[in-house]
Amino acid sequence: MVSGIVLPIKKVNSLVDQNISVEIKDEGCKFEGRLAAMDEYLNLHMENTVEITANGRRELGDVVIRGNNILSIAPLN
Amino acid sequence: MVSGIVLPIKKVNSLVDQNISVEIKDEGCKFEGRLAAMDEYLNLHMENTVEITANGRRELGDVVIRGNNILSIAPLN
Amino acid sequence: MVSGIVLPIKKVNSLVDQNISVEIKDEGCKFEGRLAAMDEYLNLHMENTVEITANGRRELGDVVIRGNNILSIAPLN
Amino acid sequence: MVSGIVLPIKKVNSLVDQNISVEIKDEGCKFEGRLAAMDEYLNLHMENTVEITANGRRELGDVVIRGNNILSIAPLN
Amino acid sequence: MVSGIVLPIKKVNSLVDQNISVEIKDEGCKFEGRLAAMDEYLNLHMENTVEITANGRRELGDVVIRGNNILSIAPLN
Amino acid sequence: MVSGIVLPIKKVNSLVDQNISVEIKDEGCKFEGRLAAMDEYLNLHMENTVEITANGRRELGDVVIRGNNILSIAPLN
Repeated sequence: MVSGIVLPIKKVNSLVDQNISVEIKDEGCKFEGRLAAMDEYLNLHMENTVEITANGRRELGDVVIRGNNILSIAPLN
Repeated sequence: MVSGIVLPIKKVNSLVDQNISVEIKDEGCKFEGRLAAMDEYLNLHMENTVEITANGRRELGDVVIRGNNILSIAPLN
Repeated sequence: MVSGIVLPIKKVNSLVDQNISVEIKDEGCKFEGRLAAMDEYLNLHMENTVEITANGRRELGDVVIRGNNILSIAPLN
Repeated sequence: MVSGIVLPIKKVNSLVDQNISVEIKDEGCKFEGRLAAMDEYLNLHMENTVEITANGRRELGDVVIRGNNILSIAPLN
Repeated sequence: MVSGIVLPIKKVNSLVDQNISVEIKDEGCKFEGRLAAMDEYLNLHMENTVEITANGRRELGDVVIRGNNILSIAPLN
Repeated sequence: MVSGIVLPIKKVNSLVDQNISVEIKDEGCKFEGRLAAMDEYLNLHMENTVEITANGRRELGDVVIRGNNILSIAPLN
């Protein structure tokens, strides 16, 4: 289990400097942008961020997202 | 209580490399895919992931799901 | 306060191998089944689990429920 | 600040063996019963518990309530 | 960053023995009363507490509010 | 990963004494004001704070916002 303990965090860390898609819990919204930095709580610092909801897209630029409200993180294809 | 303290995490760890079904709290959605890795917070790294909602199925591929928003994890039969 | 600090967890631990009823927060659903194992976060490993909602009953079998989404745990009479 | 750090927990501890009212977040429900034990996370073990909702009262007996889903705890007058 | 790490908690601690207004997340309700004690998790012990919702005011007296369900804390003017 | 572990918190710390916009999870509301102090949990002490909802703006002045209910933090342009 030693390797299993770090792997999801490591997976996110491997996405630093790449474009990611972040789904937010209970919000029907997601953030897309470049992952600038992350920490062990999955707090994310994103750049060139766009918030996408049912109402459309909104440019947010530089933003810090708190980890506990994140549902999922995936590379943006 | 010593063995009880680790068992739910160990149960999830035993599902690594298997297909699992993950129900999300408050979302009416679930994720199905191969469990690639997990950690002590039940953060999950899943592969070949499909998100299933009332609106249908969506291919997500590689995704990290934050543990605190997970309601339940079960082997996929 | 020394004894008070451990008692709710110990109460749940005393239910291992018994049938329990687990109410989920905000979900209008509960899980019933045999408590196989628990840990200090109230993560539960349940067996022969049935999910009960307003829509009926669903057999889940073996399932791990994350502790933070649990509202209450009680012995099943 | 030393005394302030422990006091809310101590206040709840002083209610052990008394009847309390516990309001649940987002649920429109509360639990009333005797506080048998508590811990530092405000996990509560209650006895002779009654769940009170807009739909009426339900006898729960012995129940463990997870602390993070509790909104407030007060002595029952 | 050393001073920044403690300041929000210290700000709340400076409100002990004063009247405060506490907004609850997702509830459309707030609590007003005297802050008797607080801890590092922002658990609050309040006295002479009034719960204010769209339905009116309710006297709660002595109450402990769990920190994680608090949205904001402010001095009551 | 050493630098990644601290960066989102450091990014927020760099905003102390600047005007920020704080979006709250599930609330359809945001807070704008001067960031006076923050801590490692992203608890924020804000000054000259305005709460902005669909119903309009409300002056809050001095307020402490608990970190776990924050969705995102961004510099206010």
